[in-house]
Amino acid sequence: MLRIAVLGAGRIGKIHAANVAMNSRTKLVVVADPWKEGVDSLADQLGCEASYDYVSAIHREDVDAVLIGTPTEFHIELMLQAVKLGKPVICEKPIDMDYERAAAAVHELESLNGRVMLAFNRRFDPDYLSLRRAIDAGEVGDVRQVIITSRDPGLASRAYLETSGGIYRDMTIHDFDMARSLLGEEPVEVFAIGSRLVDPTLETIPDYDSVMVLMRTASGRQCHINCCREAVYGFDQRLEVSGSKGMLLNENHRQSTIRRYGADATDVAEPLLHFFLERHADSYKIELDSFLDALETNSPMPATPRDGLLALRLANCATESAATGRVVRVGHHLSLVDPSVEVAQAAGV
Amino acid sequence: MLRIAVLGAGRIGKIHAANVAMNSRTKLVVVADPWKEGVDSLADQLGCEASYDYVSAIHREDVDAVLIGTPTEFHIELMLQAVKLGKPVICEKPIDMDYERAAAAVHELESLNGRVMLAFNRRFDPDYLSLRRAIDAGEVGDVRQVIITSRDPGLASRAYLETSGGIYRDMTIHDFDMARSLLGEEPVEVFAIGSRLVDPTLETIPDYDSVMVLMRTASGRQCHINCCREAVYGFDQRLEVSGSKGMLLNENHRQSTIRRYGADATDVAEPLLHFFLERHADSYKIELDSFLDALETNSPMPATPRDGLLALRLANCATESAATGRVVRVGHHLSLVDPSVEVAQAAGV
Amino acid sequence: MLRIAVLGAGRIGKIHAANVAMNSRTKLVVVADPWKEGVDSLADQLGCEASYDYVSAIHREDVDAVLIGTPTEFHIELMLQAVKLGKPVICEKPIDMDYERAAAAVHELESLNGRVMLAFNRRFDPDYLSLRRAIDAGEVGDVRQVIITSRDPGLASRAYLETSGGIYRDMTIHDFDMARSLLGEEPVEVFAIGSRLVDPTLETIPDYDSVMVLMRTASGRQCHINCCREAVYGFDQRLEVSGSKGMLLNENHRQSTIRRYGADATDVAEPLLHFFLERHADSYKIELDSFLDALETNSPMPATPRDGLLALRLANCATESAATGRVVRVGHHLSLVDPSVEVAQAAGV
Amino acid sequence: MLRIAVLGAGRIGKIHAANVAMNSRTKLVVVADPWKEGVDSLADQLGCEASYDYVSAIHREDVDAVLIGTPTEFHIELMLQAVKLGKPVICEKPIDMDYERAAAAVHELESLNGRVMLAFNRRFDPDYLSLRRAIDAGEVGDVRQVIITSRDPGLASRAYLETSGGIYRDMTIHDFDMARSLLGEEPVEVFAIGSRLVDPTLETIPDYDSVMVLMRTASGRQCHINCCREAVYGFDQRLEVSGSKGMLLNENHRQSTIRRYGADATDVAEPLLHFFLERHADSYKIELDSFLDALETNSPMPATPRDGLLALRLANCATESAATGRVVRVGHHLSLVDPSVEVAQAAGV
Repeated sequence: MLRIAVLGAGRIGKIHAANVAMNSRTKLVVVADPWKEGVDSLADQLGCEASYDYVSAIHREDVDAVLIGTPTEFHIELMLQAVKLGKPVICEKPIDMDYERAAAAVHELESLNGRVMLAFNRRFDPDYLSLRRAIDAGEVGDVRQVIITSRDPGLASRAYLETSGGIYRDMTIHDFDMARSLLGEEPVEVFAIGSRLVDPTLETIPDYDSVMVLMRTASGRQCHINCCREAVYGFDQRLEVSGSKGMLLNENHRQSTIRRYGADATDVAEPLLHFFLERHADSYKIELDSFLDALETNSPMPATPRDGLLALRLANCATESAATGRVVRVGHHLSLVDPSVEVAQAAGV
Repeated sequence: MLRIAVLGAGRIGKIHAANVAMNSRTKLVVVADPWKEGVDSLADQLGCEASYDYVSAIHREDVDAVLIGTPTEFHIELMLQAVKLGKPVICEKPIDMDYERAAAAVHELESLNGRVMLAFNRRFDPDYLSLRRAIDAGEVGDVRQVIITSRDPGLASRAYLETSGGIYRDMTIHDFDMARSLLGEEPVEVFAIGSRLVDPTLETIPDYDSVMVLMRTASGRQCHINCCREAVYGFDQRLEVSGSKGMLLNENHRQSTIRRYGADATDVAEPLLHFFLERHADSYKIELDSFLDALETNSPMPATPRDGLLALRLANCATESAATGRVVRVGHHLSLVDPSVEVAQAAGV
Repeated sequence: MLRIAVLGAGRIGKIHAANVAMNSRTKLVVVADPWKEGVDSLADQLGCEASYDYVSAIHREDVDAVLIGTPTEFHIELMLQAVKLGKPVICEKPIDMDYERAAAAVHELESLNGRVMLAFNRRFDPDYLSLRRAIDAGEVGDVRQVIITSRDPGLASRAYLETSGGIYRDMTIHDFDMARSLLGEEPVEVFAIGSRLVDPTLETIPDYDSVMVLMRTASGRQCHINCCREAVYGFDQRLEVSGSKGMLLNENHRQSTIRRYGADATDVAEPLLHFFLERHADSYKIELDSFLDALETNSPMPATPRDGLLALRLANCATESAATGRVVRVGHHLSLVDPSVEVAQAAGV
Repeated sequence: MLRIAVLGAGRIGKIHAANVAMNSRTKLVVVADPWKEGVDSLADQLGCEASYDYVSAIHREDVDAVLIGTPTEFHIELMLQAVKLGKPVICEKPIDMDYERAAAAVHELESLNGRVMLAFNRRFDPDYLSLRRAIDAGEVGDVRQVIITSRDPGLASRAYLETSGGIYRDMTIHDFDMARSLLGEEPVEVFAIGSRLVDPTLETIPDYDSVMVLMRTASGRQCHINCCREAVYGFDQRLEVSGSKGMLLNENHRQSTIRRYGADATDVAEPLLHFFLERHADSYKIELDSFLDALETNSPMPATPRDGLLALRLANCATESAATGRVVRVGHHLSLVDPSVEVAQAAGV
């Protein structure tokens, strides 16, 4: 059994700690968080030790691997600590809010040959995995068009939005990662439009609440993303991939399968699952198992820090395109960045 | 936190023990089973004590409540032990394979005012609960017709079938429980037909593999159940309730929501979930929470031993009807039984 | 082009006459009805001649075939007139309301080798035809269970119900025909229950408004029919066939495919098509083409007077079963009938 | 009854002529086409007169209105002939392949106050109409994002493609019309990308086979169109509209509602309807009725020549955008055109 330290006892840390505790291949050794009350309560519930210090938890001799669910500002430092000790890491996204710092960190982690998985949880959603397997099995033939819908149930708080980095980097970034993976090629051109149709006062941040993106790869594959901060009908995440041999769609998840046929409102389906914690509860479990599988079989991680960097690059291109009203070429946009990034292959496929 | 002993470390005991361990309102104190290897391994995984004796686990002072997942032959004795100590019980169904013994046990448990919940897991399926709430909210008006489909993915082993008590008591009994609950009235008349369309050699047990049932309540509400030991396309469990104001349906669950559109096999949905452990994983968790809710609010148990007895009575009527080719009146069939059963109200609604 | 006389200018006659006029293989020569105003208007609209006499229209030299859409009381006489002239006939169902008269007519039509198609329109519904073809292609393997749902949107008028012959003969008869065809074997045993859940005053007719039927064939295949005079959510006609290799379902038709996702009533599908004229508009066209195909290829008619008789027999068995509360064996029920009927094969499969 | 001349006896003329013949509010007086064999056969089938000359058919005294289904090159002349005689017209799209000629014709038809309906058949599709009514009833609130999918089942012939005017003007033009109507505002900005993923040799035409478009209105409403010349899984036409109060979707149509559940290919739906003639058969009937309704109530035509011109303008913008890789502002693009077009309001709603 792999002995794991979970860093962070907040919302996401709790989910990971419970999954580690219940997984028959792992043992939850310690949860660490400077927030004493939270970490003590979590450790008591799950029957493990509590620590108030992230770094010392990494260094424990009875810890084989580390799961990082701390605030973003600690991600790079903690990943490097673990990697330098030769311990595998799962780290929550993003690497860092700053592209240059994130690029440098990816460079260092790669040069250390670190075993690091970036927790892009949608890559472990059973629906996405089905789609992925079907594409890999050749069911759509050559991919032609990818369409991604991504709408949150409601506008986040103003405070959150003001520090979010903008809709493309905060919300659409998940869709950029999906797009890279589903296209099977890196986008070379990004065009994006943004509007304030939910809340016009977002102009003062400035940010958008409703965006559409078009992307093209070098061979001509096409991708559309639509994204909105508010869908009053619920959390709307759909994927569509069409190609030379067919099309794949995935639909939203509902609270139950029942249908109501009535005289007034005939045939009503159940509401969609409200938000990502409900929708992606299984994804977090599969994510952990995928990490364990990669370690046991010595295979590449299914989502890497480099994947995080390349999704961020597309988000930056979209931000620039929406601001200027022009098409942005992906390569030109990043001329100042570490050149190893420029030649990166799409890792997510 | 309610401190719980789980009796039984087999397939169903493991599920319950894990749920008790993870529930924030319960503490898993001990798992008990004479099967030493199994119970030691389970206790180690979940971080609780192991016991090799059911009864002493019930009697522990640090145990507030008992969850019985042992072989059926121990159910009555262990329920009574716990009830006599004033400890609440969740017991797996059935009460007993013998109707007379089960009736006597229900009588005794009720006279002791025991807090006992019978673990009819389908009553805690989120789909069923949605249906239940919609009916209670008057969405179908007066119930008229109930249709229940219940098909297993494949024939169980011959050894299992020979001791199962027959398809009506082993498999359709869940549907009889659903029928009582959804009709909102007790059936007074049962007609059943049985065939051997999957495996003709079942005649030597004797048992059927494909059955259909019609039932009627005193006010004329109608119910149809169809049930088959083999559905090559997967575990098929559907419910339909129609009434004066509308209809409610629930559908099967699938492995994912993706759909495959191709040139040859256009628009293929994902396979159904294979069997009840996958399909009803959530039900077991909700079952535990419902038990805790009933204790905390001092409310009636959502599924009682009497419910188990009344479902068994319908299964016995169906068995007799299929054997004789005649309609069976429910009251006459049970003339030898404890009279308190005869006047029972439908508890499950 | 086959030159056709359409007898009857009422609701059903108008549909048939328009289809004959538009079919590129037929020419509408004359419509006949003693109701002068109706027939004149119809003839004017469709550009054909009008006649006020059924029989003389049959005898016209420029008429090759006859389509009978008159009141039921004229069916037998007009079929025999046409058959004796060697002219093929499509006749609306039923043959006659009286079983003995219908049996005698079938006997005579068969002894004359008449080319007569009975217009069981649901046999020409594209959905049914898809199901039929899939069964014939072996997609479900050996048929095991057939489930038929049949609910009208609302109760017919009291006047209609009083002369309808009862729900089994008036409404469920279509389902008995479907059952015979989908089972691929004749039912040998019928059990039926009837209730008055929509309108208790139907007791004075007497009739039921909600019925359920169970049937079994000699080899053990099973069929359930549920039928109700009122479904407030719309015209509900579904078929389900399961067997050793799979299951086939057909769903209801809707006014459009749009779905409405809203904050209050999330994901509402469109209402079902209201009633059989909308639902089965295509069936009437396919019916005509199937008749023409059978004539051109000298093949058996896809629905015969004998099919009508055998469906009526099952309706009579169900009527008796519901009245007596007993199971009815199909053979015994008909001991007085022309013996050639007794040995009939299911023709519709 | 409105007496109508149908001009054109080809594929589309036949459909219109049959609908005119069967509509109870119209009388088909004459079909006209210089193609003698075709027009004679059609007139014989439908029981009307044949003419070999378009213009004289328009001038007949017993003709009240004209339906133009001739080759495109005659559209403008024949519309003007009818309008100058004060006769209402339904004309198949497009007005003309050349934007300048089309703009001049619209100008003249409008100055003559002609009653002309342009036959944008998708505006009369029952699914679109449901969507339209729901938007008008405020069900989505303020429209935010419109997504249109439009894929043909297979690549048209090379000969057809070479004279088609390019995918944006030939195929996507229907989607531009839908977009204008569903957005409720005129797009002001168009970005389009085009690829040759089905057939690389289209480069020599030059044309694309796979395109994506993004459009924005002045208030920030957004629209995405994806369009492909080949979808091996069938004719794929879907619409999605989301707004402040909800979302509306429409799905594709299938050959029947049956579903096949099997061991190998679990749960297969029926293929999509193959192409627009099957998919839109009802649209042509509703189109005729809408024309009659507009005449009877003296209301604006539900689709006008101006609508055709504005859709063509968007197609031209997309063509330019794809060729240059730049965003195109709609107003600038048309600086040479008759100024009355520039100030046009969105008429299509």
